[in-house]
Amino acid sequence: MKSLPELSDLIHQSVNKLQFPVSPKGLYDPIRYMLSLGGKRMRPVLTLMACDAFNGDVERAISPALGLEVFHNFTLLHDDIMDNAPLRRSKPTVHEKWNSNIAILAGDAMFVQSCQLVMDTHSSVVKEVMEVFTKTALEVCEGQQYDMDFESMNEVSIEEYIDMIRLKTAVLLGASLKIGALIGNADSEAASHLYDFGVNLGIAFQLQDDILDVYGDASFFGKQVGGDILANKKTYLLITALNKANGEIKEELAGWINSNDKTELKVNSVTAIYDKLSVRQIAESKMHTLYNDALQHLNAIPIAEDRKQPLKDLADSLMNRKN
Amino acid sequence: MKSLPELSDLIHQSVNKLQFPVSPKGLYDPIRYMLSLGGKRMRPVLTLMACDAFNGDVERAISPALGLEVFHNFTLLHDDIMDNAPLRRSKPTVHEKWNSNIAILAGDAMFVQSCQLVMDTHSSVVKEVMEVFTKTALEVCEGQQYDMDFESMNEVSIEEYIDMIRLKTAVLLGASLKIGALIGNADSEAASHLYDFGVNLGIAFQLQDDILDVYGDASFFGKQVGGDILANKKTYLLITALNKANGEIKEELAGWINSNDKTELKVNSVTAIYDKLSVRQIAESKMHTLYNDALQHLNAIPIAEDRKQPLKDLADSLMNRKN
Repeated sequence: MKSLPELSDLIHQSVNKLQFPVSPKGLYDPIRYMLSLGGKRMRPVLTLMACDAFNGDVERAISPALGLEVFHNFTLLHDDIMDNAPLRRSKPTVHEKWNSNIAILAGDAMFVQSCQLVMDTHSSVVKEVMEVFTKTALEVCEGQQYDMDFESMNEVSIEEYIDMIRLKTAVLLGASLKIGALIGNADSEAASHLYDFGVNLGIAFQLQDDILDVYGDASFFGKQVGGDILANKKTYLLITALNKANGEIKEELAGWINSNDKTELKVNSVTAIYDKLSVRQIAESKMHTLYNDALQHLNAIPIAEDRKQPLKDLADSLMNRKN
Repeated sequence: MKSLPELSDLIHQSVNKLQFPVSPKGLYDPIRYMLSLGGKRMRPVLTLMACDAFNGDVERAISPALGLEVFHNFTLLHDDIMDNAPLRRSKPTVHEKWNSNIAILAGDAMFVQSCQLVMDTHSSVVKEVMEVFTKTALEVCEGQQYDMDFESMNEVSIEEYIDMIRLKTAVLLGASLKIGALIGNADSEAASHLYDFGVNLGIAFQLQDDILDVYGDASFFGKQVGGDILANKKTYLLITALNKANGEIKEELAGWINSNDKTELKVNSVTAIYDKLSVRQIAESKMHTLYNDALQHLNAIPIAEDRKQPLKDLADSLMNRKN
């Protein structure tokens, strides 16, 4: 069995070895650039870990694992156009460095390549793997659509928000694990538990992101603390606060949402409202519930405990991260 | 065996029966709209014809055939954003009716759905079918990139132009046929001949388009005759004229290319230059060579002549079309 650092190394090396055609440069240079920006490579590592947990041949899972990483980067590339984002991992986004047309087409090509990589495994599981992959890819599109819809909606419920982040973020983590499990010849019940482990962990991970954006340590967090507050982003924290606030506090919060203030004063004032309403505790409690649900699905899988340890370690590290 | 009109009816009915989820509306309404705009549905008809030519079960080819149509419409949707096109089949394009973000995401989702439809056939051929499909999809992206590159290039050779239209248009016709053949259990040599039939026919079809844009009958053509001339589009005709022109004619042609004239005067003057240089004859001769090459590949397939007849009829009708 391979350790988390071993699998992580294997993925980082494999991503660096990915080959793309030389020509047309206008298509493949942006793809090489996008993949060179780095990242935790969490999804492909999950695929290898899942395969390894079932004692599967990890070599056979490498291509599909890379496909999931290429797919994730395709979604980031197109999301950056839609969000008009200037930077990705502190470097210019593809549509900034080149232009939107280049970014649209490079994304399309990355999606094709992700399919090619995901289906590059043994024939007996290709169809099932591709069914999981395409179902998930469509859900990720749906999640992005809901996210865009929420920007112009006055009211978003907690349930709608959770469902959006499930689709936009969590199902891809679940699918990365399930695909690894299928390649490792897990039975469908075990693969399904691993999927649910990933989805619950993914939602918890996103709530953690929402919390860190307000309560994170700026020196660890890697982006401006309070960015979500300044952008009036409908996060778990803001939606909870809007639900709980009454009277004066409600008016004060509405005032900040309607103001164009882009200073620390807004961040500190809204954070103070969150504190009064115990929003952080509510979010952390929900996060821990999801984390425990995730672990229950992991526990339900009938394999030796030591084979699950790397997955537990990863889940722990995700829940205790500072960035 | 089914006739061309029967297969065409089957495809039109099946496209109309395609179901999409209700929600999120912002994602699925544009997809329904795009597919409602109509079209010849040439690619899915080719898939069914190819399957039927090998006496395959046409029912099993319907989903993949629809997948190829959805894929084609996805490329049109994203190309329309890149070309900033206001109209598609005389109706507002998706990015005009909604916006670019909606159009990008709807296109992404259509591509996912095209994969789901293409792989919905018997397990024994899924992997091979998906390999043909994804290879082709990547080539279509490459073709679009070359097409965009050519806009800002001073010189494009005939070989580069032919290769661009092969990638952007022709390989998808070849793939539509090959996928139908594979589902019909054709052997790989026969499937490969049918692919080459489609690719040669596809290039000939695009040259025909270039010719019709200048020499078509406006009452049949359905778009403004001379549009390519006004846009200085590097078509087979313009590239041939630039290669052949000398002295005064060369200067005159360069003058028109550099002018911002958007009137019939430019169309008539450039057409007169084409006439002097016999550009139409050269293009038609190349088109007929490609058409004959296509037929040779069809002839090389060891099935009864009457089974090939619908494919020959379709090729004839494409070569003798007026729009």
